[in-house]
Amino acid sequence: MLGYFGPAGTFTHQALRTITTEDGVAFASVREALDAVRQGAVSRAVVPIENSVEGGVSATLDELIAGAPLAIKGEIVIPVEFGLYVREGTDLAAVRQVLTHGHAAAQCRDWLATNLPEATVTEAGSTAGAAAEVARPDSRYDAAVCARVAGDLYGLTELAYQIEDNVGAVTRFVEVGPAGRVPEPTGADKTTLVAFMRRDHSGALLEILEQFAVRGVNLSRIESRPTKTTLGSYCFSIDCEGHLREKRVAEALQGLHRVCPQVYFLGSYPRANQRRPEIGVGFSDGEFAAAAAWVASLSR
Amino acid sequence: MLGYFGPAGTFTHQALRTITTEDGVAFASVREALDAVRQGAVSRAVVPIENSVEGGVSATLDELIAGAPLAIKGEIVIPVEFGLYVREGTDLAAVRQVLTHGHAAAQCRDWLATNLPEATVTEAGSTAGAAAEVARPDSRYDAAVCARVAGDLYGLTELAYQIEDNVGAVTRFVEVGPAGRVPEPTGADKTTLVAFMRRDHSGALLEILEQFAVRGVNLSRIESRPTKTTLGSYCFSIDCEGHLREKRVAEALQGLHRVCPQVYFLGSYPRANQRRPEIGVGFSDGEFAAAAAWVASLSR
Amino acid sequence: MLGYFGPAGTFTHQALRTITTEDGVAFASVREALDAVRQGAVSRAVVPIENSVEGGVSATLDELIAGAPLAIKGEIVIPVEFGLYVREGTDLAAVRQVLTHGHAAAQCRDWLATNLPEATVTEAGSTAGAAAEVARPDSRYDAAVCARVAGDLYGLTELAYQIEDNVGAVTRFVEVGPAGRVPEPTGADKTTLVAFMRRDHSGALLEILEQFAVRGVNLSRIESRPTKTTLGSYCFSIDCEGHLREKRVAEALQGLHRVCPQVYFLGSYPRANQRRPEIGVGFSDGEFAAAAAWVASLSR
Amino acid sequence: MLGYFGPAGTFTHQALRTITTEDGVAFASVREALDAVRQGAVSRAVVPIENSVEGGVSATLDELIAGAPLAIKGEIVIPVEFGLYVREGTDLAAVRQVLTHGHAAAQCRDWLATNLPEATVTEAGSTAGAAAEVARPDSRYDAAVCARVAGDLYGLTELAYQIEDNVGAVTRFVEVGPAGRVPEPTGADKTTLVAFMRRDHSGALLEILEQFAVRGVNLSRIESRPTKTTLGSYCFSIDCEGHLREKRVAEALQGLHRVCPQVYFLGSYPRANQRRPEIGVGFSDGEFAAAAAWVASLSR
Repeated sequence: MLGYFGPAGTFTHQALRTITTEDGVAFASVREALDAVRQGAVSRAVVPIENSVEGGVSATLDELIAGAPLAIKGEIVIPVEFGLYVREGTDLAAVRQVLTHGHAAAQCRDWLATNLPEATVTEAGSTAGAAAEVARPDSRYDAAVCARVAGDLYGLTELAYQIEDNVGAVTRFVEVGPAGRVPEPTGADKTTLVAFMRRDHSGALLEILEQFAVRGVNLSRIESRPTKTTLGSYCFSIDCEGHLREKRVAEALQGLHRVCPQVYFLGSYPRANQRRPEIGVGFSDGEFAAAAAWVASLSR
Repeated sequence: MLGYFGPAGTFTHQALRTITTEDGVAFASVREALDAVRQGAVSRAVVPIENSVEGGVSATLDELIAGAPLAIKGEIVIPVEFGLYVREGTDLAAVRQVLTHGHAAAQCRDWLATNLPEATVTEAGSTAGAAAEVARPDSRYDAAVCARVAGDLYGLTELAYQIEDNVGAVTRFVEVGPAGRVPEPTGADKTTLVAFMRRDHSGALLEILEQFAVRGVNLSRIESRPTKTTLGSYCFSIDCEGHLREKRVAEALQGLHRVCPQVYFLGSYPRANQRRPEIGVGFSDGEFAAAAAWVASLSR
Repeated sequence: MLGYFGPAGTFTHQALRTITTEDGVAFASVREALDAVRQGAVSRAVVPIENSVEGGVSATLDELIAGAPLAIKGEIVIPVEFGLYVREGTDLAAVRQVLTHGHAAAQCRDWLATNLPEATVTEAGSTAGAAAEVARPDSRYDAAVCARVAGDLYGLTELAYQIEDNVGAVTRFVEVGPAGRVPEPTGADKTTLVAFMRRDHSGALLEILEQFAVRGVNLSRIESRPTKTTLGSYCFSIDCEGHLREKRVAEALQGLHRVCPQVYFLGSYPRANQRRPEIGVGFSDGEFAAAAAWVASLSR
Repeated sequence: MLGYFGPAGTFTHQALRTITTEDGVAFASVREALDAVRQGAVSRAVVPIENSVEGGVSATLDELIAGAPLAIKGEIVIPVEFGLYVREGTDLAAVRQVLTHGHAAAQCRDWLATNLPEATVTEAGSTAGAAAEVARPDSRYDAAVCARVAGDLYGLTELAYQIEDNVGAVTRFVEVGPAGRVPEPTGADKTTLVAFMRRDHSGALLEILEQFAVRGVNLSRIESRPTKTTLGSYCFSIDCEGHLREKRVAEALQGLHRVCPQVYFLGSYPRANQRRPEIGVGFSDGEFAAAAAWVASLSR
């Protein structure tokens, strides 16, 4: 059974539906979803990790390292697309009262101003909640701005789609399971980890980045997070290209383990876009193996 | 007139009181406080920037670059210390109902469990609001956990102080004014800036850090912030040691201007701790001037 | 009047003839040729600087910084091509005794073995001296292996040309004048300098290289030279792409001046191959000027 | 049987005597001495490698990689000290004719000018040859400036010692044997290697240096050598602190093998000065082993 950061009808729910036909179990917070994995209540959970319009990113970064070890098993990237959903029979001209979450209202401001200049927009606790409210036959609201999954879930009619002003935004989700066996490399993988900076050590971040650079490992994301101990103490949440079983990644991880007071490995998993990294000259597994064999031959 | 991110009775208010005897104007959000500076309604505003227990940090980092240019004129570091405040005449044994903000409750959990094991702790919207409520003669709450400034403000009696479990936590605030004349260097200054990473350029952060390293400039804070355009696009909010008018800092800023698509300079100002940076061999103003004079002499 | 490291008939002489129709004054050593410039006896001197088959490179690197300041005004690259030269009337079948310098013999070994398997090869002090000897009507030698300039000079007949085994070798010469006005940039220039390493400073060479890398300046040559003080003390003789009046080069030179105990600037001059450097994003003069203007604007 | 770069009576001979009471076999060139090791004619040979006053350094660097693999087994550092040696019965006042090598004459110029202002100094082919000549009863020379070993060898009387102007100069010699079993680490070792730069790859030297820096390995010597193929093509002869069996050195060597077209390992051997390297945090064998164990544990 799979869990997700709910409620039903959100983009996280939509992400879940790309990997299962199950309903899934909605949890009220990222922490509760991840704890359910830790306790075995669900086998995996889908939670947002990056740039979501519905929040949750910092929570995920922090919660992933807050208890028993978990591992990311896959990632899902979902376009942030909104539609206008009504009860069957309502047409656009009849829409006077729109209900949605503040973030969604902000992202669809231009479309609403152009197409529903007379309508009043009211903020709900979530876009999914807005859809649920509009679905009530006696609701005082005529339309919800929400994800398609919410429109479907509550049996609403779609009057317009892709009404967001900033087309092209996406949210990235991860599928989290218990730590343990790492999935086999596919050749187009990503590795997520958290590296803590040595305190009072100027140049510590430079040192962290060099561990990757000198082994030809590209980073696709790096974000600082306060460690919650003292002012100016950070850790870095990092996604790099490649898999733990690729030697350039393994040696970079060893380097981090030596220069950082703490490193968390959060999983190697297939990239959503299936793009294979460009591996520079000197950084392939074959070249690592040949170098190790050479040094071994010297030491006989 | 000075503004601050209110309400009255918070640590931000306490920070304000370290630099003025004025009352100050409380604003409901960091944005409103900073916009008041932009519009000239207040000459300066005090807002939290780092690791605050009351939130506001990300908001400050984002709002500082969101409109007309502002500049940081000074910093204030305040210990995060809580006390237990009651109406005059209440003693510890009589405290049954405690009101405070959730963060403060969390930070004083051990003290409350040890000293008030029977008491019920209720969450208020802010620690200052808790103090205001407790100050009402007919309040159903006996005590507030809040900052000393709130106890003072509402005429409460302090039963205990420094009751936080994690002694030593601090919050850092900045005093923000309109961009313009930079304060003179004191020899113990800090410079704050925001550097945007070139897109799709692996190693861009390494390149940013090298601009500082090669000129001997230490960083005291570096935090990533999403740029809100595409997934994986970041800018970095950075504090470095030194002043715009020190040549190593000026040359590092020039370097950033060349390698980053966008750089914001947010001010050079005296450090709260008045600690002078250690300037390595080759990085003093005199050495920069001598190097420039030498190159000029070659080019005659 | 121009000087050169003689004798007449060497590749250095050939290099001289590419820039003047004058005869030039031959000097017996690089030191004497450079001292003649220092004393004003000649206006400029041509000396070998890199990978010559006739030696002289280390001497040049050392002598350039050994006395009153000199500057490189231009470079000349000459293919290392040898021919077989005889007195008029001798044909290949008649060649029994070949005279040449040991280096030239080594470089033409295959050709001599194939085409003159029966001939005896004797070593002379120089290829030019070999040509002079062969030119004597009563010489016991039938042929000289030497540069074309020597064949011409001594009125010999060329029986074969480009007889060297390793086609494509070149020697690089520099035209050295008194320090003073640097030639105007052409857009395809080179700058030569010598940087001394700080003693007992692990990473000093890395620090030197970073001065160039961080300003986008490519190196085309770097060679260590002992400083002749203590074991393990080196300076580095460096050619970089670009001209002192290009800002990326000027800032790199300033950086070296700050981090090295001693730097010698030996000139900016047009490259022999007239290839313009690729200047990366952020490293053009316009970008340096814009960065300086930006920082100046902040400091008002 | 041990060989050395002769003749007898040089500093190389003196170096040999620090490790054996044997006479040793003198060879006329570094190449011949090393080839004798390759062919098994001698078990080891002592040759100068760094900053010698008697030449031989470049030859050694080049010859070490020119044929069948050899390995450095130890190093010997000898002070460059000269004395004035005469036939028994000659006193200082009687010295009119001094014979020595040009280098030694140059290095003792001040002493000779002060103490033998009237004497004529003649240049011999070597300081040892000068001693041999002076030892002849009918020699027209009264005194030799040479190493003590030469004075001893030829039964001369020492009139003065340490007469060199620049006290403190030393020459470094290496004891070279066939490649094969590397001596056990002593904790105070040095490793010698030669790394070839990738062609047309700006930043290649920076890349080489980073292989050491990122593993905390200090360099004690780095010298460029032309590769004799094309202009601007170099290899680097490098001494680093530590032993092949220390993991930071082994990983650095593996890194070089991956980024360089060719690397020669020339041996790990005890340092002459027995100084143990300072190993930074994160670079000890224990930390390397712990890092490898951690990564292995992730991959189960």
